Amino acid sequence: MTSQKAPTMKDVAREAGVALGTVSKVINGIPVSERNRLKVEQAIQTLNYEVNTYARGLKTQKSNLVALIIPNTTNPFFASFADHIEASLYKKGLRLLLCCADGIPQKEIDYLNMAANNKVDGIIALTYSDIGKYIPPSLPIVVFDRFFENRVIPRVASDNFSGGCLAIEKLLEFGCRHPIYIRFHSVFPGESDKRKDGYLYACEKYGLEPDFIDEVDCDDRLRIMKEFLEKHKRPDGSLTFDGVFSHTDYHGYMFYRLLLSEGYRVPEDVQIIGFDGIRKFGNDDDDLFISSICQPVELLAEKCVEILTAADGTPAPCLTLLPAQYRYGGTTRDGKR
Amino acid sequence: MTSQKAPTMKDVAREAGVALGTVSKVINGIPVSERNRLKVEQAIQTLNYEVNTYARGLKTQKSNLVALIIPNTTNPFFASFADHIEASLYKKGLRLLLCCADGIPQKEIDYLNMAANNKVDGIIALTYSDIGKYIPPSLPIVVFDRFFENRVIPRVASDNFSGGCLAIEKLLEFGCRHPIYIRFHSVFPGESDKRKDGYLYACEKYGLEPDFIDEVDCDDRLRIMKEFLEKHKRPDGSLTFDGVFSHTDYHGYMFYRLLLSEGYRVPEDVQIIGFDGIRKFGNDDDDLFISSICQPVELLAEKCVEILTAADGTPAPCLTLLPAQYRYGGTTRDGKR
Repeated sequence: MTSQKAPTMKDVAREAGVALGTVSKVINGIPVSERNRLKVEQAIQTLNYEVNTYARGLKTQKSNLVALIIPNTTNPFFASFADHIEASLYKKGLRLLLCCADGIPQKEIDYLNMAANNKVDGIIALTYSDIGKYIPPSLPIVVFDRFFENRVIPRVASDNFSGGCLAIEKLLEFGCRHPIYIRFHSVFPGESDKRKDGYLYACEKYGLEPDFIDEVDCDDRLRIMKEFLEKHKRPDGSLTFDGVFSHTDYHGYMFYRLLLSEGYRVPEDVQIIGFDGIRKFGNDDDDLFISSICQPVELLAEKCVEILTAADGTPAPCLTLLPAQYRYGGTTRDGKR
Repeated sequence: MTSQKAPTMKDVAREAGVALGTVSKVINGIPVSERNRLKVEQAIQTLNYEVNTYARGLKTQKSNLVALIIPNTTNPFFASFADHIEASLYKKGLRLLLCCADGIPQKEIDYLNMAANNKVDGIIALTYSDIGKYIPPSLPIVVFDRFFENRVIPRVASDNFSGGCLAIEKLLEFGCRHPIYIRFHSVFPGESDKRKDGYLYACEKYGLEPDFIDEVDCDDRLRIMKEFLEKHKRPDGSLTFDGVFSHTDYHGYMFYRLLLSEGYRVPEDVQIIGFDGIRKFGNDDDDLFISSICQPVELLAEKCVEILTAADGTPAPCLTLLPAQYRYGGTTRDGKR
């Protein structure tokens, strides 16, 4: 990409036989007549003209770039979130800088610095590490799920409290009498902690004895689940619980497979509801791994972009919660809807 | 992000009590003493100094941005590819502009134009639409899987031919006598077409009668599979085939579920091998949906980045094929390894 004798916008106007302002409009995406647009696009192609956005950046201080910081795109929830963020940004003429920070704080900080240095228009972050103090004060930012004690940052999340409560209500509705709760969580606080609050609230409301796994996420999950299962077996092998609300679909599915491997039937002996709404192969086939309280990923992504791109001076809400919905996924007794 | 009286690099040098060259080195990631690096970073924070990369861009013509064009990140294969591309770029100090083109040619063209206009350092594309003629000639590009008739572009792919052949050899090794092949494909040619060539080659080599579904991908897949299944039932209900090689894990899994729903046992009655190596929940639990010829996604991503970022003048190979490997995933008789 050398730039010797690079054609200018004036050259394009001359080649196209239109006014300079028309070329400028086409380049900046402002509507002109179809005929003129085609002329300009033809001239741009003929001359191999490249818009010099570095020079534009100096003037307008707009990069039209938004950095998305997420742990990775291999986790299907993050992947879906990234996909919808990209689509929402594209609709607004913005492009997405993908930062898979993978829970390594230094990488997240590197990206925040790079973001600030490159004058991205803003950051959308879904991160479980403590990067609050590294966020440049001048940088527009919206976070998903997490909150940072050291700075007021607009947050977007699912209504995890109601979702947790809904999971228990659904299990009761489908005939469970003793639902338990399984959680493996990050060491950093976030909105998703409220799933447990919702579970505990539902226990109190419906007179249930709380009974749960609640551990920091680790490689030892399966052993912990097995020990929990052993402790809940009666002498005849039957279980003292008949329902599971899992903090995530992933851990719910892991517990589901453990139950099957030990000869229990799902949903006959134990019903399971997860949280997230992860679909097999990531598509819209509505093919959930397990019945789940599904996060409205598309709406969450759109809300993040809406808040980030709101006009200057528009006050951003500190917290925006969107409702999560129950969907059947094979591990409950309500059958295919 | 206003820039009135913005601090300059000189201000940072004065604040830090170091030479201007030291500040420049720190900003450009060139090693300096730990003591000086800390001084400069402290001064940058104190002054809220932001590196003006627009001005730098004008000089060096480097954006350090690479655009990745993929259909979406919800498909787990694309998601994993994006994840590894991002990691590979990060190691080289490059950032990823994510373009989910979703098979809409106009969106891909928009992104190519945006990419050219913003002077990205290059493009990595995994696309199934015909964008060849829109690729600016001056833009470094590497494509995954697809080839474009109208321009020589370095391609990276799995060795799909050997992979297709390997799938049949594995089915035969595990006791199959009549393997079939199932494919729903894009209308555009690509390296993955060679999976079928590998299947046909194996048929000839091992004296098998070719028997397959080979249709353009559509919403009617399940109906087509059902019709195929009906035609292969003997009067007693048993099937005339005992093995399936599916062009993708996704369609193999769909056929697996169809077989189960019709009362056939997998792997006892029919063994299935897919292609791609998609893992449930996208993580490294090695939890495949079905037994599969797994693409080496991480190596493929690294190779794309390596070719794209090779020093000027290094001749890029037209085609680089990396080997795919068989892995057990529950739908074959070789058992858990």
